[in-house]
Amino acid sequence: MSEAIDRYVQQNEQRFLGELKEFLRIPSISTLPEHNGDTHRAAEYAAEKLRLAGMENIEIIETERHPLVYADWLHAPGKPTVLCYGHFDVQPPDPLELWETPPFEPSERNGNLYARGSADDKGQMYSHIKAVEALQAVYGKIPVNLKFLLEGEEEVGGISVAEYVADNPEKLKADVALVSDTEMYEPGLPTLNIGLRGLVYLEIEARGPGRDLHSGLYGGAAPNAVFGLVELLSKAKDANGRIQIPGIYDDVAPPSAEEKESWTHLPFDEKEYLQNEVGATALTGEKEYSVFERTWARPTFEVHGIAGGFTGVGAKTVIPAKAVAKVSIRLVPNQSPEKVLASVQEFVAAHTPEGIQCSVRVLSSGPGLMVNPDHPAIRVAAQAFSDIFGKPTVFIRSGGSIPIVGDFANHLGIPTILMGFGLPDDGLHSPNEKYCIRNYFDGIRTLAHFFEEYGK
Amino acid sequence: MSEAIDRYVQQNEQRFLGELKEFLRIPSISTLPEHNGDTHRAAEYAAEKLRLAGMENIEIIETERHPLVYADWLHAPGKPTVLCYGHFDVQPPDPLELWETPPFEPSERNGNLYARGSADDKGQMYSHIKAVEALQAVYGKIPVNLKFLLEGEEEVGGISVAEYVADNPEKLKADVALVSDTEMYEPGLPTLNIGLRGLVYLEIEARGPGRDLHSGLYGGAAPNAVFGLVELLSKAKDANGRIQIPGIYDDVAPPSAEEKESWTHLPFDEKEYLQNEVGATALTGEKEYSVFERTWARPTFEVHGIAGGFTGVGAKTVIPAKAVAKVSIRLVPNQSPEKVLASVQEFVAAHTPEGIQCSVRVLSSGPGLMVNPDHPAIRVAAQAFSDIFGKPTVFIRSGGSIPIVGDFANHLGIPTILMGFGLPDDGLHSPNEKYCIRNYFDGIRTLAHFFEEYGK
Repeated sequence: MSEAIDRYVQQNEQRFLGELKEFLRIPSISTLPEHNGDTHRAAEYAAEKLRLAGMENIEIIETERHPLVYADWLHAPGKPTVLCYGHFDVQPPDPLELWETPPFEPSERNGNLYARGSADDKGQMYSHIKAVEALQAVYGKIPVNLKFLLEGEEEVGGISVAEYVADNPEKLKADVALVSDTEMYEPGLPTLNIGLRGLVYLEIEARGPGRDLHSGLYGGAAPNAVFGLVELLSKAKDANGRIQIPGIYDDVAPPSAEEKESWTHLPFDEKEYLQNEVGATALTGEKEYSVFERTWARPTFEVHGIAGGFTGVGAKTVIPAKAVAKVSIRLVPNQSPEKVLASVQEFVAAHTPEGIQCSVRVLSSGPGLMVNPDHPAIRVAAQAFSDIFGKPTVFIRSGGSIPIVGDFANHLGIPTILMGFGLPDDGLHSPNEKYCIRNYFDGIRTLAHFFEEYGK
Repeated sequence: MSEAIDRYVQQNEQRFLGELKEFLRIPSISTLPEHNGDTHRAAEYAAEKLRLAGMENIEIIETERHPLVYADWLHAPGKPTVLCYGHFDVQPPDPLELWETPPFEPSERNGNLYARGSADDKGQMYSHIKAVEALQAVYGKIPVNLKFLLEGEEEVGGISVAEYVADNPEKLKADVALVSDTEMYEPGLPTLNIGLRGLVYLEIEARGPGRDLHSGLYGGAAPNAVFGLVELLSKAKDANGRIQIPGIYDDVAPPSAEEKESWTHLPFDEKEYLQNEVGATALTGEKEYSVFERTWARPTFEVHGIAGGFTGVGAKTVIPAKAVAKVSIRLVPNQSPEKVLASVQEFVAAHTPEGIQCSVRVLSSGPGLMVNPDHPAIRVAAQAFSDIFGKPTVFIRSGGSIPIVGDFANHLGIPTILMGFGLPDDGLHSPNEKYCIRNYFDGIRTLAHFFEEYGK
């Protein structure tokens, strides 16, 4: 560990925090077109800060939707090249009424910074920029070659960055990619993610009668679009949480005995997890699998939202003509999104109730994947993480999806270090999302330390 | 038939239509509190028109929610007393974008008057007032004793009028009630309704995790409120449309063989009904029962609306914490709403999935019922209807609910004549609701003729 870097970070903590707050004030909600200008502003903000940190060849790359930001610094001949990735877009903040302080007015409480995007991913990606700044300020150079590729569509499927990676393998050539968009297993425990689930995100629409009908006059004979959709969706999983889409489990690669064994050593209290994290009366899902297996190594079927008919205050007795559900299937390594999509289409066709017509629209799709924990860059990253946090690094998976990791593997042929500084209770995608301020600073130190060690 | 009445109605058609349009311009949407002022205005409008028609003792009776309007004219000693009922509140007009002309700007097209409430029930109830006006104008008196009781809560359960009827049996004493809030079986075919379904209207709320969770991190282990609600609702009916709530069919009184036989003579083309009225690919429900039985004499379970999770544009990967559905059960004669409610509570408790908590809120509740077609007032009404329309009157049922008919039976001990002038394609509760202008005028004539004949 470099004392000079530690000192620099310490002396600049308040400024680093102030800059992050400024970044978080930009409501770069990529899914809402009315915020397109904000998402662009977030790109400009990141580009400018890369420039000030001493990165070169900075580009804001316009796309059909939201811009990408590229930058590089390639003055470490003979040293490896790291491709840093992050995203500056965020999830919508609704339901707004559940936020204690407004989502885009960052607020410090109990050592945390509360704001939409604080952990996912502005706070984490901004650590990369500040690590570069620290190295440049202390040494006048960076110990490895660096490329940055930042995007503004991660929360809406990341189409543009995927195309850009596919189209520019030479420009983006690197030895390893580095992504900070995951969480530590528990506070203070350095954690590398070596597995991710993929995602197929769909909208299923059901149509029944040609118009909303009076349920008194037609009830008993006319199909009901909401009930039709309910019937269809209910058939997707049995009471034990087992997905009923044909063939869905065929290609699932189970974790190795060794990996499964390592999970049993992770500190985990199912009761506490249920009460403090999930906050429900019971867990659900396939009981014959552990919670780690269910959330990391098994596919899931979730309904994220449903709407149809009259949902205002009071009573309206209609038979609704239309209903729609947002649905996703999480995929584990070795499952093909295309094959799963075909099975879903088949399932929907087979189980659409009489009198109902269903259509499926694909919003995004990407596979799950694994990285090899014995890769040299992963080993150095694990050691660097361990050095700063003072504990051995654990290897876990995440049940979430980071499609870009698949793109880096497929188009650049490189593994990705998933070195995240988030915490399990950060509330990603939820009201009151926060980022631990201590982790923000220690993340910057860890990243700078990793670059130093990887450059040796 | 009185030529003088016919002439009076004919000479005043345009004014009668203009007044109805004025009435329809008042957006008296009883379920939306922001329209409370409008609902009150509609009461005032009806009261003023009753006064102008020569009714007496006019009262606007304030209640906890929407006002009632009372009026009487009791100067026909020895003649029977008719209690005229109608409602001046309307359903919400959404979805607004499907209306060809604005719901509260009445528009004439193809012999119809398009507006929310045109058929249900402003147009029909206003016919009563215009029939009184015609009789007073032509004869200077009314051939029977009349009482009017109008309400502004019919679309939201009619609590205030029910209480008022229960509390004022002496004031409302009559020989028969007269309600025009139903439809003719087909254009030109005089129709009396002798059976109605009841209604139990509920809101079912499901809660899962304590907050919306990230489906990547928690998917596979955390319960999903939307899916929990979907699972619960899907169990309420089997694939054949048979309701699975225990005991729901126990007390169902089947129609007599004679009544069932009479239905086979009604003109009905199932294919045309499916295509032109329902507009779906197939009918649903209990196949072993005819469409008449399914919609008139069998209980139903319908989901009127459902909402939960993220339903905006694009993708959001949450496991929703909460979901809600609006649900109703239509009841047929002899079923007890209280007993059915208890069964629903039992059903919900038994089928709430693990990890989910459900609550049931009752929005309204009323029994189904039958009137005796051999009652003298019903016979006179059938003849009067027949006289004006030139065809024998048919006796049918309606699958809808008019709880006030039950209140009149229980508290006043009188039957109700359901003499409606609506048509099956009026689009009640739907966009582009309309009322046939010819039926509006012929309805006025029929009502005046009925009063004359009943007074003989």
